[in-house]
Amino acid sequence: MQKPVNNNFKESLLHTVDSLRKSIRSGEMDDSTSGLVPGLVQVNIVILPKIWVHDFLLFCQKNPIACPLIDVFDAGQFLLKSLGKDIDVRTDIPEYCVFVNGVKTEVKKDISDLWQDDFVVFALGCSFSFEYALQQAGLSIANLESNRNVSMYETNVPTNSVGVFQGNVVVSMRPFTPAQAIKAIQITSQFPLAHGAPIHIGKPEMIGIHSLSNPSFGDAVEINEEHIPVFWGCGVTPQVVINNAKIPMFITHAPGKMLITDKLYSELR
Amino acid sequence: MQKPVNNNFKESLLHTVDSLRKSIRSGEMDDSTSGLVPGLVQVNIVILPKIWVHDFLLFCQKNPIACPLIDVFDAGQFLLKSLGKDIDVRTDIPEYCVFVNGVKTEVKKDISDLWQDDFVVFALGCSFSFEYALQQAGLSIANLESNRNVSMYETNVPTNSVGVFQGNVVVSMRPFTPAQAIKAIQITSQFPLAHGAPIHIGKPEMIGIHSLSNPSFGDAVEINEEHIPVFWGCGVTPQVVINNAKIPMFITHAPGKMLITDKLYSELR
Repeated sequence: MQKPVNNNFKESLLHTVDSLRKSIRSGEMDDSTSGLVPGLVQVNIVILPKIWVHDFLLFCQKNPIACPLIDVFDAGQFLLKSLGKDIDVRTDIPEYCVFVNGVKTEVKKDISDLWQDDFVVFALGCSFSFEYALQQAGLSIANLESNRNVSMYETNVPTNSVGVFQGNVVVSMRPFTPAQAIKAIQITSQFPLAHGAPIHIGKPEMIGIHSLSNPSFGDAVEINEEHIPVFWGCGVTPQVVINNAKIPMFITHAPGKMLITDKLYSELR
Repeated sequence: MQKPVNNNFKESLLHTVDSLRKSIRSGEMDDSTSGLVPGLVQVNIVILPKIWVHDFLLFCQKNPIACPLIDVFDAGQFLLKSLGKDIDVRTDIPEYCVFVNGVKTEVKKDISDLWQDDFVVFALGCSFSFEYALQQAGLSIANLESNRNVSMYETNVPTNSVGVFQGNVVVSMRPFTPAQAIKAIQITSQFPLAHGAPIHIGKPEMIGIHSLSNPSFGDAVEINEEHIPVFWGCGVTPQVVINNAKIPMFITHAPGKMLITDKLYSELR
């Protein structure tokens, strides 16, 4: 008699992500991935022509909170084998943004027609990867409760610039009660590859955010009197920074619409 | 040739505490111990007649954040050998409060004349024990900067009552910038025997504190626009709770004037 394999948890996540990936690949599913397949790591994707890779790699190294680097792939490589057995970066993200000479020119569900042999894929950690841990601790995540994308804001906090890459940090925001905020800091400190601990709490104006109800990306959520806004580094930062550089062309995921991998956080390193 | 002993750090702390203890014992030093001998554990002291010990022990067990129990001594035991080689609890605290039938009747520098054979000493963890770790992380502690006692407040947060022991949690408060507050949460989470992580952050009114400039115990400190008040459980809680019970007599340290032990935090358990 064969012993049953004791990895039901992971097996069931992989089963879920397989079918989700099919509907993303076919273009059916183009929503935010926040809250989807809790337990599996989600990543920010930046696709850059090879000529910019050296400087951007250095930029990630110098900005690990906004840009926690999970993997960089060989030029032309669109199958991201280190992240999952069947991930094609050209089709498996719900929505992509295409930037040309500093302007967002297109939002697409598939970038196969744009693929170039000199494209290099960067996978950067995403805060969606720790949301399940917050939920397991009993914290409710406002944007998930109201079925919205997370709120993201440009700040006045500068990144450490490298070459043409410069600009301010973008943050994601989740409102919590004070006691929940303390728990959220404790928990997310354990996830450095998913932006780690918050970079700011309360007092949005101190980091240049003047209206929480007008996020730069994603959706606004309600914040009541007993909630404090808690701000984490966000993988939309490189989109802004690379766009500032007005390089001829690059591609990213659309904010909040991530690549879902086959990996548990514990499998990353 | 004898090898030099490689414990200079601890040796130098013991040297400092020895001479400080002498001046406390002689009555010369009766100030707050906040910031003194950074690195050595400071403890809250509760001295109760034996008849109340069972219920108070249970109270500590049910309220570990306000009352982190470090040690309980045998009835009549005034030399606290587990905390240091030469600690006499009757003389080695800068100031004591004596409570009789629910009223604070005396503040004394020495309680030798009041000692009873049925007195049992409880040593409870104190947040002063983690202040050095905050300072090592580059955080400045407002009350130390201005040479004051820490601010402490009665809250509306109930303790878990046991028998006659009931009442609300007392908190200590330290103001920090948002980024410092996040670091303070990360660091103090590692000190569960010194009250651990804060229980509240920002929004004092949510825990029944209506004026930060009027602390219930200790001194007020300035809080500027860019600071958030951060609240930790406080070992003055048992003073309030036991006093509520109106038991015939008990003795404690005066708020902010702790017993300094010979122990590093790592030596506690």
